[in-house]
Amino acid sequence: MGSLTLRRRITWGDLDALGIVFYPRYYEWIDEASHIFFDKIGLNLGRLLKEREIIFALVETGCHYFRPGRYHDEIEIITELKDLGEKTLTLRHEIRLSGNEVLLEGYEKRICVRRLEGTSFEAISIPEDILTLLRDHLQR
Amino acid sequence: MGSLTLRRRITWGDLDALGIVFYPRYYEWIDEASHIFFDKIGLNLGRLLKEREIIFALVETGCHYFRPGRYHDEIEIITELKDLGEKTLTLRHEIRLSGNEVLLEGYEKRICVRRLEGTSFEAISIPEDILTLLRDHLQR
Amino acid sequence: MGSLTLRRRITWGDLDALGIVFYPRYYEWIDEASHIFFDKIGLNLGRLLKEREIIFALVETGCHYFRPGRYHDEIEIITELKDLGEKTLTLRHEIRLSGNEVLLEGYEKRICVRRLEGTSFEAISIPEDILTLLRDHLQR
Amino acid sequence: MGSLTLRRRITWGDLDALGIVFYPRYYEWIDEASHIFFDKIGLNLGRLLKEREIIFALVETGCHYFRPGRYHDEIEIITELKDLGEKTLTLRHEIRLSGNEVLLEGYEKRICVRRLEGTSFEAISIPEDILTLLRDHLQR
Repeated sequence: MGSLTLRRRITWGDLDALGIVFYPRYYEWIDEASHIFFDKIGLNLGRLLKEREIIFALVETGCHYFRPGRYHDEIEIITELKDLGEKTLTLRHEIRLSGNEVLLEGYEKRICVRRLEGTSFEAISIPEDILTLLRDHLQR
Repeated sequence: MGSLTLRRRITWGDLDALGIVFYPRYYEWIDEASHIFFDKIGLNLGRLLKEREIIFALVETGCHYFRPGRYHDEIEIITELKDLGEKTLTLRHEIRLSGNEVLLEGYEKRICVRRLEGTSFEAISIPEDILTLLRDHLQR
Repeated sequence: MGSLTLRRRITWGDLDALGIVFYPRYYEWIDEASHIFFDKIGLNLGRLLKEREIIFALVETGCHYFRPGRYHDEIEIITELKDLGEKTLTLRHEIRLSGNEVLLEGYEKRICVRRLEGTSFEAISIPEDILTLLRDHLQR
Repeated sequence: MGSLTLRRRITWGDLDALGIVFYPRYYEWIDEASHIFFDKIGLNLGRLLKEREIIFALVETGCHYFRPGRYHDEIEIITELKDLGEKTLTLRHEIRLSGNEVLLEGYEKRICVRRLEGTSFEAISIPEDILTLLRDHLQR
């Protein structure tokens, strides 16, 4: 898979008092896009946690906002895997009006961690089988 | 005012399925901290919009995550004005466990815009009176 | 239209620390379903506000929870107009696993209000043209 | 403790495009108030889950909205335990402008459940020690 494209419609609850999207919502959507991206390439994060106690935790996130999203706009969220290291990976997200102007560009840098117990984690190298899978979907 | 410190307690609804804070929540809190920061220095953003149709819209946001926040943790959100240009400003935020470890560092770059009508906006130079006010609270 | 059915997949950001949906999320979804329901019957709430300063504000909401929603579950949100008075209406929502068990039943009672200025509102009788439209989609 | 009063200020991210609180936010706040209420009477829900695999899951929630909350309003969230059965309890919440008008009344009916494994639960009688504790804080 080169990139994943999700579609959604901006709704009332996404808006702030200016009638444009409240920006933390964008992060909710790109987080969701990441989960769906991983699932589509065969790496369901829920199962990964349950069966192997592994997650891809956030190290860094960021967004550039170009235009505001408005009520009832149809948008596309386009997600690609852009970088892949020994322990980390970076997803790049773009949100645009359907077939049109870019609203924002964002990224999430994630690190592979193993859950020790409760809510403690340690960084680990991405296991070989997962790395192989990810490499097939790396976009350059 | 050098920096603003807000205190809050991490609650159930802030957590994800790992029992740690779901990261878009952090952006909600730093956005809130910005609004309170502006209010404390005498620039209530609600009144600014109502009386002068001016807002400080987001251009760019980002966060580095160092440690996860957990249920019932008491945290401090520390906010400073770090950059001030003709049209833009940057707020720097740090979230730490009360008196202790840093959970994250983040920033918001905002641009001064005037609302034209409905949900259209144009970038403007920060008006002189506001600029003067902001300069007094710039942290270097 | 008898009822509207929306489909979505439960995602990471919807979960609490038990790994089940954090209940305020359900209210976000049924609010969204109401907006889409109104749009589908020809009553776009964004335009209604912009052109006539009318909105359907919330008077009362409630939900019964039968089973928890979990990561990656595909769900259906089914929305119907159940009551229609002079000033108020009630939407009934049901959320179920796709083609299967009911997760919750909820409702929203909404009242027709006109925006006076800023954030002040007064209750009004539902205008005749809107009432006629709504009557065609009332489910008994 | 008769009732718990929490104070907060309505912020930008709580508002919808009308400039009033988006109603699912109120449920987030009353859920938070419940957790703090339980903690204050000596029943930390995080520890209860961790140490005894017990939680108070939601059966039913509801709110009546009387007036809209607006930007920068200071509000009080007042929480009481109103009903206590063998397996269930009901919390009543009221949100008002500080020392003034009631914005809403809401409730949460919760049922005592034990976590079996993963995200499965079974309803149980409230253990005797917890029941005793709760009885002391029941408001009639």
